[in-house]
Amino acid sequence: MSLAFADRLAALVEERRSQIVLGLDPDPAALWPGAVEAGTDTASAVAHHCRAAIYAAGPSCVGVKPQLACFERLGALGWAALEVVVQTTHEAGLLLIADGKRGDVPVTAKAYAQALVGETPGPYGTVPGLGADAFTANPLLGRDALEPLIEAAAAHGAGCFVLVRTSNAGAAEIQDTPEGDPLHERLARLVHELGEPLTGDSGLSAIGAVTGATRPDLLQRLRDLMPHAIFLLPGVGAQGGSVEDLGAAFEVHPAGGLIASSRSIVDAHRERGGDPAQAAAAAADELRQAAWAAATA
Amino acid sequence: MSLAFADRLAALVEERRSQIVLGLDPDPAALWPGAVEAGTDTASAVAHHCRAAIYAAGPSCVGVKPQLACFERLGALGWAALEVVVQTTHEAGLLLIADGKRGDVPVTAKAYAQALVGETPGPYGTVPGLGADAFTANPLLGRDALEPLIEAAAAHGAGCFVLVRTSNAGAAEIQDTPEGDPLHERLARLVHELGEPLTGDSGLSAIGAVTGATRPDLLQRLRDLMPHAIFLLPGVGAQGGSVEDLGAAFEVHPAGGLIASSRSIVDAHRERGGDPAQAAAAAADELRQAAWAAATA
Repeated sequence: MSLAFADRLAALVEERRSQIVLGLDPDPAALWPGAVEAGTDTASAVAHHCRAAIYAAGPSCVGVKPQLACFERLGALGWAALEVVVQTTHEAGLLLIADGKRGDVPVTAKAYAQALVGETPGPYGTVPGLGADAFTANPLLGRDALEPLIEAAAAHGAGCFVLVRTSNAGAAEIQDTPEGDPLHERLARLVHELGEPLTGDSGLSAIGAVTGATRPDLLQRLRDLMPHAIFLLPGVGAQGGSVEDLGAAFEVHPAGGLIASSRSIVDAHRERGGDPAQAAAAAADELRQAAWAAATA
Repeated sequence: MSLAFADRLAALVEERRSQIVLGLDPDPAALWPGAVEAGTDTASAVAHHCRAAIYAAGPSCVGVKPQLACFERLGALGWAALEVVVQTTHEAGLLLIADGKRGDVPVTAKAYAQALVGETPGPYGTVPGLGADAFTANPLLGRDALEPLIEAAAAHGAGCFVLVRTSNAGAAEIQDTPEGDPLHERLARLVHELGEPLTGDSGLSAIGAVTGATRPDLLQRLRDLMPHAIFLLPGVGAQGGSVEDLGAAFEVHPAGGLIASSRSIVDAHRERGGDPAQAAAAAADELRQAAWAAATA
């Protein structure tokens, strides 16, 4: 990787006029019918499903965000399916954001970094990691636990999206307290501090933030606290967020916000009817147009 | 599993007079020499190493705690090695605590629960999960994100250890703030609230807490806030914690605290010399005796 993540992303966003990231949270009980026919076991059917979704929706997207939990629950074969997703994403010219929300003490954080963006030296040679272009990280363990992840991201030209304010309803009790000095603002200041030295030519940093689209009222304040961070914005669609409300994310750059959407795209045929791939392609392009309009308004 | 996790653990602690949990954080560049000879690739060497460590130290332990990051970094083969660890742990009559510190929005938390203690329905039948007896969880996303993990733990007779105060130095900035109402106390109250309904005959709950042994000064307050929680205590040995300082954990029951130790046992031969297995067995038994004395003092 010759360019840092933020600059690669910024170029791709402008080229494709898109801020859409295809979320892949495959439910083995609700795969596209063609994938089940093509598979030989659940994990291979999941791989077929994800590959078809990337082919269909990819042209309207800049990235793909597999949810690691959905692959881990299928064991070693599930991890192999995840490797197929990474390869297909790269073949499609898209960036891979591994969504695992990892966080652990420094020595273990280093192992997660090896798993996601690095490699692991061993007695039979070096074992390659997943080869993600970026990943999500949980900051509860603090600065020293984030540092190995950030160092690895910087070394590999990758990005790290730190949880700041998540999209679920229950987030408020922990992340919005105590009143007056909410945790999400303290996390935002930490993200800014760690990310500022890694700001690229685009004005965007390799260290971004996960900021749920379900609380657009918080975005302006978070943008003020993190002027260089790319906001990864889950929660549009099924969770109730709307792209029209996310303007603050894009103040600094059209790539200042990424709209992560999974069910609204992959399950579009359930509402629209017809072929899953055609429905996903149409839904992704509509979302792309809406987001681009909101981002450049 | 006929009995709930806490009661199974309590019985095992009393039977073995041990609170020791063998941590497995295998570094492929520092495996026991016999494991490298027996392996055919890095992941299989890691599996041999872990199996040998469980055989050697297991008799002094009640549980085994693999660090998921160290297996994930070896890809699909690493996940297969993790499955060998689970099987070997159960064959040795020990409880398996999967240390992944997962945490995500509710729909994804449910997928992690399937991966760790449940199973996943799919078009080719049901895919079994890892089969852990307990797992660690990150509470940053709040109550609704913990609930699917806790429900799954309860349904499968498993345990869930929620991060409350981790053992790393950087934890203070996030978990000990703001002064007067530190996050770790709010997390402790949440753990108590969620765990109290799952208290077994032993007086211990299926919902435990990760409380670093590096801050023994906090343990009495945490015990007062969480009278039924089993404390999983990392940080003894290499990180500087000492079993003699952990008395508050054991106030409620000899199984009220679990001493998680990895490097002090698995790498004991580096300081003691001699055969790694013999050194690990001796180190584990010394730690067992010291912990039992501290717990029953």
